[in-house]
Amino acid sequence: MKIKYTIGIVFLSFCSIAFSQSNKQDSLMFIKLYEEAMLRGKSYENLEILCNTVGHRLTGSPQAEKAVELTRKMLKEAKADSVFLQPVKVPHWVRGKKESARIILAIEDIKSINNSNAISPATQKIIATEILALGGSIATPPDGLRGNVVEIKNLKEWDKIKKNQIEGKIVFFNQPMNPKTINTFDAYGPAVKQRSMGAIMAAKLGAIAVIVRSVTLANDNNPHTGAMRYNDSIPKIPACAISTKGADMLSKFLMEEPDLEFEFFMACQTLPDVMSNNVVAEIRADKNSPVNTEYIVSGGHLDSWDVGEGAHDDGAGCMQTIEALRILKAVGYIPKRTLRFVMFMNEENGLKGGEEYAKLAKKNNEKHIAGIESDAGGFAPDGFSFEATEKQKEKLKTFWKNFMPYGLHDFDRTGGGADISPLKEQGTALFEMMPESQRYFDYHHCDLDTFDKVNKRELEQGAFSMAALIYLISEYGL
Amino acid sequence: MKIKYTIGIVFLSFCSIAFSQSNKQDSLMFIKLYEEAMLRGKSYENLEILCNTVGHRLTGSPQAEKAVELTRKMLKEAKADSVFLQPVKVPHWVRGKKESARIILAIEDIKSINNSNAISPATQKIIATEILALGGSIATPPDGLRGNVVEIKNLKEWDKIKKNQIEGKIVFFNQPMNPKTINTFDAYGPAVKQRSMGAIMAAKLGAIAVIVRSVTLANDNNPHTGAMRYNDSIPKIPACAISTKGADMLSKFLMEEPDLEFEFFMACQTLPDVMSNNVVAEIRADKNSPVNTEYIVSGGHLDSWDVGEGAHDDGAGCMQTIEALRILKAVGYIPKRTLRFVMFMNEENGLKGGEEYAKLAKKNNEKHIAGIESDAGGFAPDGFSFEATEKQKEKLKTFWKNFMPYGLHDFDRTGGGADISPLKEQGTALFEMMPESQRYFDYHHCDLDTFDKVNKRELEQGAFSMAALIYLISEYGL
Repeated sequence: MKIKYTIGIVFLSFCSIAFSQSNKQDSLMFIKLYEEAMLRGKSYENLEILCNTVGHRLTGSPQAEKAVELTRKMLKEAKADSVFLQPVKVPHWVRGKKESARIILAIEDIKSINNSNAISPATQKIIATEILALGGSIATPPDGLRGNVVEIKNLKEWDKIKKNQIEGKIVFFNQPMNPKTINTFDAYGPAVKQRSMGAIMAAKLGAIAVIVRSVTLANDNNPHTGAMRYNDSIPKIPACAISTKGADMLSKFLMEEPDLEFEFFMACQTLPDVMSNNVVAEIRADKNSPVNTEYIVSGGHLDSWDVGEGAHDDGAGCMQTIEALRILKAVGYIPKRTLRFVMFMNEENGLKGGEEYAKLAKKNNEKHIAGIESDAGGFAPDGFSFEATEKQKEKLKTFWKNFMPYGLHDFDRTGGGADISPLKEQGTALFEMMPESQRYFDYHHCDLDTFDKVNKRELEQGAFSMAALIYLISEYGL
Repeated sequence: MKIKYTIGIVFLSFCSIAFSQSNKQDSLMFIKLYEEAMLRGKSYENLEILCNTVGHRLTGSPQAEKAVELTRKMLKEAKADSVFLQPVKVPHWVRGKKESARIILAIEDIKSINNSNAISPATQKIIATEILALGGSIATPPDGLRGNVVEIKNLKEWDKIKKNQIEGKIVFFNQPMNPKTINTFDAYGPAVKQRSMGAIMAAKLGAIAVIVRSVTLANDNNPHTGAMRYNDSIPKIPACAISTKGADMLSKFLMEEPDLEFEFFMACQTLPDVMSNNVVAEIRADKNSPVNTEYIVSGGHLDSWDVGEGAHDDGAGCMQTIEALRILKAVGYIPKRTLRFVMFMNEENGLKGGEEYAKLAKKNNEKHIAGIESDAGGFAPDGFSFEATEKQKEKLKTFWKNFMPYGLHDFDRTGGGADISPLKEQGTALFEMMPESQRYFDYHHCDLDTFDKVNKRELEQGAFSMAALIYLISEYGL
């Protein structure tokens, strides 16, 4: 009993020393990584270069290819052990000539004099409003498309809508993001359905087009684009986004004059698929590490919508990924697992890059234990969301306490990023950086997503957080 | 034993019901306050009015008086039970004609030809740089002031500096804010000493002026002003702020050419004190409440520096204070303690408003149990810092859990706000709202502190947080 007791004490003391040593090693590494990111950080100046020299970079565009070359160079400069391209076939949608739209109202007094509901050119009042074609939409006829409008204020109403209310009309999906929701990402899902599925829903009932309220909490004149879908068995109809102020105005006019007309023009089209690339960099695992056949991948998506500069979405995530590589190298870290840093192509309208990466990982038998994504804006990091097993979650609790002194505090949310999601079926644990969420949808998919909206320190703190999580998983596995 | 046990159970059940009922009541009130702030919020549009119709509003200026009238009106519109002014004598410093500054370098090749160190007009190269007089500084002579420059890169060096190194020269305090510090407010204190005390320190050793590196983590061309002090027994010398890019440039030139000259002009002066006002609104306590003689005060400061629009500093805090009143009234809350909502005058260069408020509270025997301040920018609230007794801190732990679902998470920091600090000696517990800190000093005391830097939802979430804390203290005391 006494011996056992002594052994117990000795064992506990040993564990405690080992534990506190690893704690100390970790906290020293955290300090090194933090200082490297904050004192000699390159993420902000790299983002400025990406935004200023490339700008927006929709999949298939010449800018997207320019971004491939630029980030390949940046990853080399960050001292990656190797950098290579993963060719991937991607969709190629183009916006074409700038869209235009107008609301056509009758002039009340003239209308009443004429005692007629028809809007003739002599009695009409025209109000222009800003729209953007939704990504993937077909064009309108070359002379535009004109029709009456049916407003849907709440998607829950949709099931009650009958074909005769919709047929031959333009459906105006006007459900706002819920401003009561605290984390704005929780308000995105419920509101984005009208953008992604609206054209299918409306065409099923015979609509000729859809107008979708921009998925943002801001009240302004900037339309926000984003992906939309068609179903091959249902007619394809043009789909555009209207700004929130434009949507409120249209809604108000519809109350006053339900038979107003909306006319719009879009020249967008889907061209044949083209070849593009994921850009992949590596820091190879220590040759002597017993777990050096395992991989940890982190990344952001290199493509953006064809508006603004794709600064927060997702230039920030890409530059943080490159910076995570740079600072891990700069502090001299030699990983136990091989680290991959990926600029994924085509997250916005296809996810072909993420799918290709996962396909090749499987084919090449690269065991990916973790994927880490930054695609929620370059704001101050609040924490990480993740998808992991219960056993992994227990282990992760010991990781998260390391982040507390750096202001990260939220590790309760579930979810990984889009580009790493195809890895899930291979048993990869998924992580997504969660920055402070209030501003993201103000800039998302619109002309406002430009470099000046990014704060240097917030971006750098995200890059540090990503590198620190990579380090912990590389050291301790999952 | 069995009886005791049963009583125990009954008592515990009773407590548990009472506790969960109060919890339920609190969480319902939190929901009401949150929805009122986010759905029908007025803080953002009020801030736009303040910034656009008044703009910056230094104590003693006509704009400050305009802001007094405007916020008196806003507090009435927010349905205060009463609104009154507290007259207060305040300092009156004016900037006068715009400052100018230039760095005068020798042109090396000409200098070497002449074999002389003197910089004559024929051999000089002049580089203009932006400065701002520090608040309270005396002017330079009307034709400007010119001299050699001694750079102090680290305030710790100061004690080793001898009079003969300084006498007759301009001292350039160039210690940057520490970029490694995680919460930027922790980096402010160590760096701000050179601004507030630099002129005294330098004049003691015979300096003729001081140039102070702007206290910001941003690297740009905007000088940041702020308060500086004189000591009546030491000569007063002019003091200006130089932008961080300007400071780095001057430092670089000094390395190359230690005998360069700096010439600057400032026309600022201190005029006789004038009368101004705190603006005070009340929601009176329930007549039947046994604690209705107690007070809870919340506020921000109405004055700002005479640059930018005082949007984050502290238009945001003032508008949140008015909004806290409005939403508490709008949800029909009748407080157990009397609630005061104050626009304090003269925080930036005197604190006369805060001192007068505390003096009158004491004189009128108004027992202030708590003061709550918002003066750290209108960013997303992270938590509250506070100064309270150990017993109060225990009680506060039960308060903080209510805030967790709203994203507030940091309740570990010590500190109350400046304007409420004079109440401390009356035993008042002090609270300051702590927003996310990364961007604050980018805008602080400079031309960039304008309305467009404020995010609507972040501002509203702060107003909600303030109202929610007022509610809890009013209900449960401290």
